Amino acid sequence: MATQKSKVVVTRDLGPDVLGKLREDPSVDLFVWPPDCGCDRNWLLEEAEGAVGLVVTLTDKVDEELLTRAGANLKVVSTMSVGYEHVDLAGLAKRGVRLGYTPDVLNGAVADLSIMLALMAGRNGGNALAHVRNGEWPNISWSPFGWCGPQLSGTVGGPKKTVGFLGFGRIAQVTLNRLVGFEITRCIYTTRIGSPPKKDLEDSLTEKHRRVNPGFEGVRQVDLKTLARESDVLFILAPGGAETRHIVNEELLREMKRTSVLVNTSRGSLVDSDALAKALREGWIWGAGLDVVEGEPDVTADHPLVKQPSCVIVPHIGSATFATRTDMANTAVANVLAVLSNKPMVSEKRVWQD
Amino acid sequence: MATQKSKVVVTRDLGPDVLGKLREDPSVDLFVWPPDCGCDRNWLLEEAEGAVGLVVTLTDKVDEELLTRAGANLKVVSTMSVGYEHVDLAGLAKRGVRLGYTPDVLNGAVADLSIMLALMAGRNGGNALAHVRNGEWPNISWSPFGWCGPQLSGTVGGPKKTVGFLGFGRIAQVTLNRLVGFEITRCIYTTRIGSPPKKDLEDSLTEKHRRVNPGFEGVRQVDLKTLARESDVLFILAPGGAETRHIVNEELLREMKRTSVLVNTSRGSLVDSDALAKALREGWIWGAGLDVVEGEPDVTADHPLVKQPSCVIVPHIGSATFATRTDMANTAVANVLAVLSNKPMVSEKRVWQD
Repeated sequence: MATQKSKVVVTRDLGPDVLGKLREDPSVDLFVWPPDCGCDRNWLLEEAEGAVGLVVTLTDKVDEELLTRAGANLKVVSTMSVGYEHVDLAGLAKRGVRLGYTPDVLNGAVADLSIMLALMAGRNGGNALAHVRNGEWPNISWSPFGWCGPQLSGTVGGPKKTVGFLGFGRIAQVTLNRLVGFEITRCIYTTRIGSPPKKDLEDSLTEKHRRVNPGFEGVRQVDLKTLARESDVLFILAPGGAETRHIVNEELLREMKRTSVLVNTSRGSLVDSDALAKALREGWIWGAGLDVVEGEPDVTADHPLVKQPSCVIVPHIGSATFATRTDMANTAVANVLAVLSNKPMVSEKRVWQD
Repeated sequence: MATQKSKVVVTRDLGPDVLGKLREDPSVDLFVWPPDCGCDRNWLLEEAEGAVGLVVTLTDKVDEELLTRAGANLKVVSTMSVGYEHVDLAGLAKRGVRLGYTPDVLNGAVADLSIMLALMAGRNGGNALAHVRNGEWPNISWSPFGWCGPQLSGTVGGPKKTVGFLGFGRIAQVTLNRLVGFEITRCIYTTRIGSPPKKDLEDSLTEKHRRVNPGFEGVRQVDLKTLARESDVLFILAPGGAETRHIVNEELLREMKRTSVLVNTSRGSLVDSDALAKALREGWIWGAGLDVVEGEPDVTADHPLVKQPSCVIVPHIGSATFATRTDMANTAVANVLAVLSNKPMVSEKRVWQD
């Protein structure tokens, strides 16, 4: 007896291994946008008709138009991302469509990139690289403090290092794990205004990191001004949205140390680009490392931050490793298959109240 | 009663704080090459006459000519560096002149840069940066595996990570301290051919790192071929000289994994540049991060490694942080003052046998 197959539409080629899990499932009728680049909107609108599941990415808008075209069969939207700004949550909720996403599996990749950007921004990484690529190494005359920057790790003459986190979720905590091996002495963080300190978490992290580094003084929640004033490196790892928009503004940047480094690997909207460009130009802080910029990808060569030599920018590659993207794709596919077989998703974002 | 002052010549402006220690010493008659860049050889030859101490850097040749010009008063050469390839050790030995140098204080800065280069080489750091600087971000179309590279840290789908060290001295061990926070699983190393495994060190490091990361399997000496075959990231941290020249050659590179990354922060002579360029061009390995290149600083834009997009090169800035260079300068000055007052140097390199 033939059972009706469930139509699943996937907006990117996720590779044979990952897609194989959908392809080999006898209950799935699979439609994949073939090239490994941006999915055509019209193709998606057409293919979505009658779909039970949609597997999408950050660049595919899941809005009223798409949901209407999909119709009453749609049970699940599964995004291969930790963010869901591109998804109309209310539209999903009113139709009873569930949302799968892929948090956690990308924490390590984003933490790695955060450390890379902190080091590059401190150690003149952008300029050093450009200098060699432009063939200017032969013209460098060695001098005791030439090419110097602030050091991420503790030193004989400067053993105290404070790292700060604006937002202290999972990625921040994994980043802190990395940093303890750099002999930092203290971690401070600020979370949502008015939220109580995570006392148990602070104690357990302090104890854990002291076992590695006996000089580690501890983890402590502080207010935003203290965070700006005391951080040698400040990592921005908070969610985007209206609540955090331009939380890194002129006022906050003016509080920071002249030798400090700012790293943003969360969302571009948290940082006021003009204020940061001014801070770098006028030397309020030492440097910045950015994986995200407000208005991306429309960030051109004449953008005020791109023009700052002390600003290191990479094009939103926080989760871009083969292993992590494969884990994300597998999670996105597993989320769809779970809904089709009435099992719990690996990672579900609740879109409505029970 | 006036005592004879000791002439001390310093080939670089080490800043007021550091030089103050020599300037304020009543027994010292100080001569400093004033600008903060390459010291003029003729100035040095002239000023060296009658000097008791010379404070030099890697770019000042301490050879027969200079030692002869200095004459019989010379007691100590103090180099602000961990290397001493620029110093004629036999010339010092036959005159009974002692050598001060500055190891250890730069370990942390070099370890930091090693991690930065490992991350940049893995994560397409050079190209990502150039892409944004050239205004090409708007043209990037998101794709699941676009901009991907191998991940330094362990992941859900790829939890096993082996880091390798060619040379396993102090800087390598500090670098390993940093890496344990990246959830690596195993460390292998190769030292001088025929040297026995450092069994006690292996055990103590394994125990220490397991306390941080219970999945850490251990530290183990292996032969060169195994090192090449099994390392996900291979750090070159061995001394230069004839014994290690081109130890990273075509044969070794052909053994490495296609996804592996090579990092050299020791001396350029250890790596055969043409072989590495070929390995990158033909995809034998994923990428390379270099702080040193054979023949530096004469590394121009048409150098085969500079032309490789997967090769990230910075101009020998391993120790270039304000804190570390200050510690190095202070050590170099303290070494001279120690000899003048008949005290043990902070760091002395023995140049003759007792």
